Amino acid sequence: MKSSADVTNQSESSLRELFPEPAVQRLPWYYTYVSQLHSLGVEQVSSTQISKYLNVEASLIAKDLSYLNIRGKTRIGYDVEQLKAALANFLCFHKAHKAVVFGVGSLGAALISDVGLERYGLEIVAGFDIASRQKIGKTPVYDISEVKNRIAEHNAEIGILTVPPNVAQYVADLAVDAGIKALWNFTPHRLNPRQGIVIQDTSIYSQLALMYNRLELLKNLQR
Amino acid sequence: MKSSADVTNQSESSLRELFPEPAVQRLPWYYTYVSQLHSLGVEQVSSTQISKYLNVEASLIAKDLSYLNIRGKTRIGYDVEQLKAALANFLCFHKAHKAVVFGVGSLGAALISDVGLERYGLEIVAGFDIASRQKIGKTPVYDISEVKNRIAEHNAEIGILTVPPNVAQYVADLAVDAGIKALWNFTPHRLNPRQGIVIQDTSIYSQLALMYNRLELLKNLQR
Repeated sequence: MKSSADVTNQSESSLRELFPEPAVQRLPWYYTYVSQLHSLGVEQVSSTQISKYLNVEASLIAKDLSYLNIRGKTRIGYDVEQLKAALANFLCFHKAHKAVVFGVGSLGAALISDVGLERYGLEIVAGFDIASRQKIGKTPVYDISEVKNRIAEHNAEIGILTVPPNVAQYVADLAVDAGIKALWNFTPHRLNPRQGIVIQDTSIYSQLALMYNRLELLKNLQR
Repeated sequence: MKSSADVTNQSESSLRELFPEPAVQRLPWYYTYVSQLHSLGVEQVSSTQISKYLNVEASLIAKDLSYLNIRGKTRIGYDVEQLKAALANFLCFHKAHKAVVFGVGSLGAALISDVGLERYGLEIVAGFDIASRQKIGKTPVYDISEVKNRIAEHNAEIGILTVPPNVAQYVADLAVDAGIKALWNFTPHRLNPRQGIVIQDTSIYSQLALMYNRLELLKNLQR
């Protein structure tokens, strides 16, 4: 088994590249489950146990976890604390990524208030809006005109877009010009790709469409 | 070209089944764009125009839209109003799906307050929580113990899960027993599948993991 010292940034990066997206979907489930076990004082967990609880095939779990440079012991399973740390490390949940929210409406404000996100490595340091509000909890909300200075001051790298779709591109461009490296796009607007910038679309409207679609199929089957 | 009368429920259902998920991802972008055009009084749109604005290949757009039984006219393009209606119809955004929210924390409350969701066919009629609150805007929030009666009373078919992960399965089971047909799961907990129930996972934590991953890759490349 490789020690963590063997894993250079370079090889970690190639591992990342090879990692298939469906597995990245499953890993946060494992992380949530072992975090709960850990908080309850459980020290060992087998892949059979994970498999039963999460309804994922045990062979698939073993395969997913093999990417992490962690191995279970026969008949004992995985060390919960080690597994939790390895998952957090692989998913980059262990370090704080500084983020700002653009558009402090109901969704933007909810993301700022959500303490859960911090456990997943997201530290929201500020919000921007046109209707200026002073603060949400302890997080300052600035006028959008201050974007350049404030992003530099807070050293933020992620911009969360929860603005109306018709201004999404405009605000995305402002954010990138101010130094933002990744855009987490909650709007149903398709952003123009830009060299060297990560765009992560989380369209809850596409998710709705998929859900409606499957619901209609189900109704037709039951008719 | 088929008239809409030719399309029975049965054939519509088979169309649905054949429709690939990446296209369902793109269709809401088209819908958002043509909705904006429509609200600005624009009457015609070409696939070249959609292609330029949304950065999607024109041939792909033509292919996606061919599923809708709508065809553009040479040199004129699509009728905006017709296209909007066809997209809304296909995506089931045109009819109100009654939904309830389980867990009225920051995210749950934001979803209840979000007027945008109604334009995408989601009508949130009630919320449930353990810490009972009277209302969010005009939407009633009930104690979770009332779930059975209230879901029947409101005739809701969709349950939105924004509870803590450790109670997600328990609440999902309550919801299904009360008659909910589709669960929109925002928690990082993997729900047990149940016969005849649609589960739609929207894990913002997986999205975070993907974004971090791509951000790390980018940094390694730029080093």
